[in-house]
Amino acid sequence: MPTLSVDPSGTYLSLETATGTQRFHAIWLRDNAQDAETRAPGNGQRLIALRDIPADTRIATAQINPDGVVQVRFAPEDKTVDYDLAWLEAHSYDRAAPSTQGWLAQEIEPWDAGLMGNVPCGDFAALAEGGQALRDWLGQIVRYGFAKLKNAPVEPGGLFKVVDLFGFVRETNYGRHFEVRTEVNPTNLAFTGLGLQAHTDNPYRDPVPTLQVLYCLESSAAGGENMVVDGFAAALRLREEDPEGFALLATHCAKFEYAGEAGVCLTSRRPMIELAPDGELIGIRFNNRSCATITDVPFDKMEAYYAAYRRLGEIIDDTAMEVTFRLEPGEAFVVDNTRVLHARKGYSGEGTRWLQGCYADKDGLRSAYHAMMRDARVEAAE
Amino acid sequence: MPTLSVDPSGTYLSLETATGTQRFHAIWLRDNAQDAETRAPGNGQRLIALRDIPADTRIATAQINPDGVVQVRFAPEDKTVDYDLAWLEAHSYDRAAPSTQGWLAQEIEPWDAGLMGNVPCGDFAALAEGGQALRDWLGQIVRYGFAKLKNAPVEPGGLFKVVDLFGFVRETNYGRHFEVRTEVNPTNLAFTGLGLQAHTDNPYRDPVPTLQVLYCLESSAAGGENMVVDGFAAALRLREEDPEGFALLATHCAKFEYAGEAGVCLTSRRPMIELAPDGELIGIRFNNRSCATITDVPFDKMEAYYAAYRRLGEIIDDTAMEVTFRLEPGEAFVVDNTRVLHARKGYSGEGTRWLQGCYADKDGLRSAYHAMMRDARVEAAE
Repeated sequence: MPTLSVDPSGTYLSLETATGTQRFHAIWLRDNAQDAETRAPGNGQRLIALRDIPADTRIATAQINPDGVVQVRFAPEDKTVDYDLAWLEAHSYDRAAPSTQGWLAQEIEPWDAGLMGNVPCGDFAALAEGGQALRDWLGQIVRYGFAKLKNAPVEPGGLFKVVDLFGFVRETNYGRHFEVRTEVNPTNLAFTGLGLQAHTDNPYRDPVPTLQVLYCLESSAAGGENMVVDGFAAALRLREEDPEGFALLATHCAKFEYAGEAGVCLTSRRPMIELAPDGELIGIRFNNRSCATITDVPFDKMEAYYAAYRRLGEIIDDTAMEVTFRLEPGEAFVVDNTRVLHARKGYSGEGTRWLQGCYADKDGLRSAYHAMMRDARVEAAE
Repeated sequence: MPTLSVDPSGTYLSLETATGTQRFHAIWLRDNAQDAETRAPGNGQRLIALRDIPADTRIATAQINPDGVVQVRFAPEDKTVDYDLAWLEAHSYDRAAPSTQGWLAQEIEPWDAGLMGNVPCGDFAALAEGGQALRDWLGQIVRYGFAKLKNAPVEPGGLFKVVDLFGFVRETNYGRHFEVRTEVNPTNLAFTGLGLQAHTDNPYRDPVPTLQVLYCLESSAAGGENMVVDGFAAALRLREEDPEGFALLATHCAKFEYAGEAGVCLTSRRPMIELAPDGELIGIRFNNRSCATITDVPFDKMEAYYAAYRRLGEIIDDTAMEVTFRLEPGEAFVVDNTRVLHARKGYSGEGTRWLQGCYADKDGLRSAYHAMMRDARVEAAE
């Protein structure tokens, strides 16, 4: 049976369970009360601000009831709030901060060419029905940062039906969607037959488009295969080989620019490897075409910075990192543009290759997935 | 007359001008060559990747011509590239990294209630013509993080004409736009008559919508004034008062959540004060309604974290920080949602208050502004 004690100061309590001791502060507990005066019962939004909670909030009394409810009475409000023991254990913060630079969120799994035989893929008709097929496919995009899709309608604009599965198009100066095929006077090298090094799209945008959909309508040209590389796996391999190089790319901002059209002058200043303040690996920007002049690395670190940038590129180019597939008409792939790099091999002028592409938002996709997971848990519990 | 010398190693050159000595590395110079083989003349995209530049690139010879062109011959490629002296000076990186936490980009100016008599504002008809009126207005949004607009058509959907001035709508689960008026069963507290503490929108999205447009169609209810607060100014005031509190909010992730609708479960884990890795202040997330349970602050820092969070809220609530205005029908404001908090005072059920809101992308707005500035410079030079 868990036990509970309140520090004489009233500023925190200690909860002792089979898994150890967890301490919780009075102000944190009060701010996270789930009662109907604190949280709107319908939408869960907090009804009060921190300013509505006295600064000298402390725990007057606390106890565990036999049903596992932790009951806390706060002074000076004289307000009693119930907490579920399991909720408290799940939200414990009584631990050291992470010390690793480049840790990954639990829902993410890095991969390399070993994933080749097992490329995440969904069937359009099954996905369109929603349910478990869609949930699993969205879950794979969350986990691996990309997934294929097949048997979709071979019609212009079909890519919007892919976006409808999970969210909304992010329109840019390239339009609601863009055509990827050889152009005579291309404004962007993507619209040529050149092979492109694996890259993330639009690093000169801030924020970058977080998802990209590429949808195949014609594919009779030789070459033009698509490749994807897990930027997180590449960054972690760099960290293994050269922790200082990893740190250089993570702690200095690069610059990116695209100004190839009238009325457009997009610039950003962000690191190639982006970490949260506590070291979580949260983003990769890698694009030789739009990398602008880097001026935010001091002279005495520039040479080592360039060496790390070169090595990251070599890792990205290593075939041991890449998953390759060919898109046939009616096939598409969705890629997390904050993490997974994509590339295409060069293709010849004979035959045709016509893809349509668009951007969308990852937060919408994650939201759709997590809502389906929540609903599945509720159903399972009923 | 500037002079130039090459280090015997060939790895860098030193340029001595009236303003001092600036050193540039061989690899950096080579990567930033502007010749037609390195950069596409039309769109400026780099045609080569770092892998195409030899790792042992060094400077064989370098000289300054009388016309101010710096000519560098690289080994082992035996390639000669010209650099403009002024370009080199403008892109110098031979300086110490910034040591301040929370420095601001040059184009940004923090403000407080002192801006009240001088609220940035544009006239819709003039803005719609483009040219200098639009450029100045966009420049104010870049500088101050918000601007008003007046004399726009009083018609539903008019807000899209505002977005057309600079970019594209960012559609979300709230729609391409959303209605802000009192609802009977609100899914979100924004759709009630309650006053709302100054906040940034959708911190539970990652990335957050970077711009918001609020557009007034009806405004006869008492109250409901709009307020804006410069989150950057608030964060810098916190830094002045309590540098450790500032650091706590910048170096630990908060959590945000919105799950108030079927099919929606939006979550994010980001700091309330966001810094680039070199300390640039780049974002504020502040929203009591959607702040989720914070679990990424270790126990021994949680009390101080909450004190800093409270103090930041007090600064935000201080009337000395706020600019207030009332939106009349046909008036709107655009706000940089990564920086400026907005609020509204409570309003009564008598009369009506009807706003339409939508999100858009700041990178598009900055791009439009910088392209107009570039064109103006080109015109001035011709």
